[in-house]
Amino acid sequence: MGELKFTQIEGIPLIQAGDNIAEILLYSIKNQEILIEDGDILAVTSKIISKAEDRLVYLNEVQPSEKALELGKIINRDPRLMELVLSESKEIVRATEQAIIVEHKLGFICANAGIDHSNVQGKYGKKEDWYLLLPQVPDQSAERIRDYFKEKTDKDIGVIVIDSHGRPWRKGTVGVIIGTSQVPALVDLRGKSDLFGYHLKISEVAAGDELAGAASMMMGQADEKIPAIHVKGFPYQLRNSSIAEVLRSKNLDLFR
Amino acid sequence: MGELKFTQIEGIPLIQAGDNIAEILLYSIKNQEILIEDGDILAVTSKIISKAEDRLVYLNEVQPSEKALELGKIINRDPRLMELVLSESKEIVRATEQAIIVEHKLGFICANAGIDHSNVQGKYGKKEDWYLLLPQVPDQSAERIRDYFKEKTDKDIGVIVIDSHGRPWRKGTVGVIIGTSQVPALVDLRGKSDLFGYHLKISEVAAGDELAGAASMMMGQADEKIPAIHVKGFPYQLRNSSIAEVLRSKNLDLFR
Repeated sequence: MGELKFTQIEGIPLIQAGDNIAEILLYSIKNQEILIEDGDILAVTSKIISKAEDRLVYLNEVQPSEKALELGKIINRDPRLMELVLSESKEIVRATEQAIIVEHKLGFICANAGIDHSNVQGKYGKKEDWYLLLPQVPDQSAERIRDYFKEKTDKDIGVIVIDSHGRPWRKGTVGVIIGTSQVPALVDLRGKSDLFGYHLKISEVAAGDELAGAASMMMGQADEKIPAIHVKGFPYQLRNSSIAEVLRSKNLDLFR
Repeated sequence: MGELKFTQIEGIPLIQAGDNIAEILLYSIKNQEILIEDGDILAVTSKIISKAEDRLVYLNEVQPSEKALELGKIINRDPRLMELVLSESKEIVRATEQAIIVEHKLGFICANAGIDHSNVQGKYGKKEDWYLLLPQVPDQSAERIRDYFKEKTDKDIGVIVIDSHGRPWRKGTVGVIIGTSQVPALVDLRGKSDLFGYHLKISEVAAGDELAGAASMMMGQADEKIPAIHVKGFPYQLRNSSIAEVLRSKNLDLFR
């Protein structure tokens, strides 16, 4: 009988700029006596990767542009924060007093360009004014972790970088991938037959996101201090992939 | 260390109208020697519940209304199928030749009102013309399964009914709940503190959907014949819930 198992990786310290996340993960995994095998997956929150990549920004050092000042005025938000959001975005999708939804430079659509300050500790000054940007290129961040594990353990694993996104139509956030190494963002079942021999028509499954949801749940969102999850039993083959696979282009999107 | 485990329930036969799904699930679980404990969750595909509830419709017996004829003409689809979609919907959200997205009578937004014919075997005539509607009230379908397990095993479990939905912005489908008994559709973390004592602001987690994604992945979409998954280790308390919790009302939705 098939089993898919998500295990919390414990004992990961607070991450600082310059830390080697892969080394810290491997140490914690060994310490916890989790067996690493080919095909296993590590799900890592974008937050610790951003911290290691020194993506912290102090709001007092941000100079808002004209556009940011205007946007801040229209939707009643701090123009310095709007400057950060704009600088991380390709395009504003919606902006209201309740929410600012953008197409991130990385291609996905999310609130506030993924900029957050929960679980962020500043370097100096007022801690409330420190914000964390998303990792520069999460696919590459994932690949670096994968490569490190390959080198040190000789096992071929997959790595996903995850964040929590809100959604149109449904309340609540869900974990989704923003980067992947070897975990297929999409699995294409078209051409496969169903129980009665029909060909399936619409059958691209967002396997990376389905995995990210449960992994995110096991990380917790508050003070649980579990920034990474070990996954065993992923039912599909690992292969080269990228976040780009899961992004719907604007001209094919009925909801932009 | 916390673990969340999804186990495929094997040996479930093809479901027919009138079958007692709960009885069949319990039999298969016992047969497989899966231990049922308080707090465990069963994730069940809507498909077998629809079959048990006799929600099969034969297209040749559907009389399309004026509106269905018009819609079919505009987007180049079978008007009888459009009749089914309209009769299961409150409102059309988008209709193009590529996709028809509606607000289902049950309140959620999905393509084709959730009507499908993969893994559907008709009763007579042309099997291609048989379609399966979603369960009447999936919250209640879930509750009936839960109650049966309580009666027979004296264990308090949760049950989710899941389907696969497409999404704006991102390609691929993901498993989501369309009904729940005792599994919280949303978990509210607002008011909780993060690692550094900030209060979290936006922290409603769609826990039911996060669970549904991984469960759906373990069901497979093609001929894997795994219509139900046993989940152990759900990190939140079970409580009364409903699909209604996760539905964003139209006036608060920026993308309708």
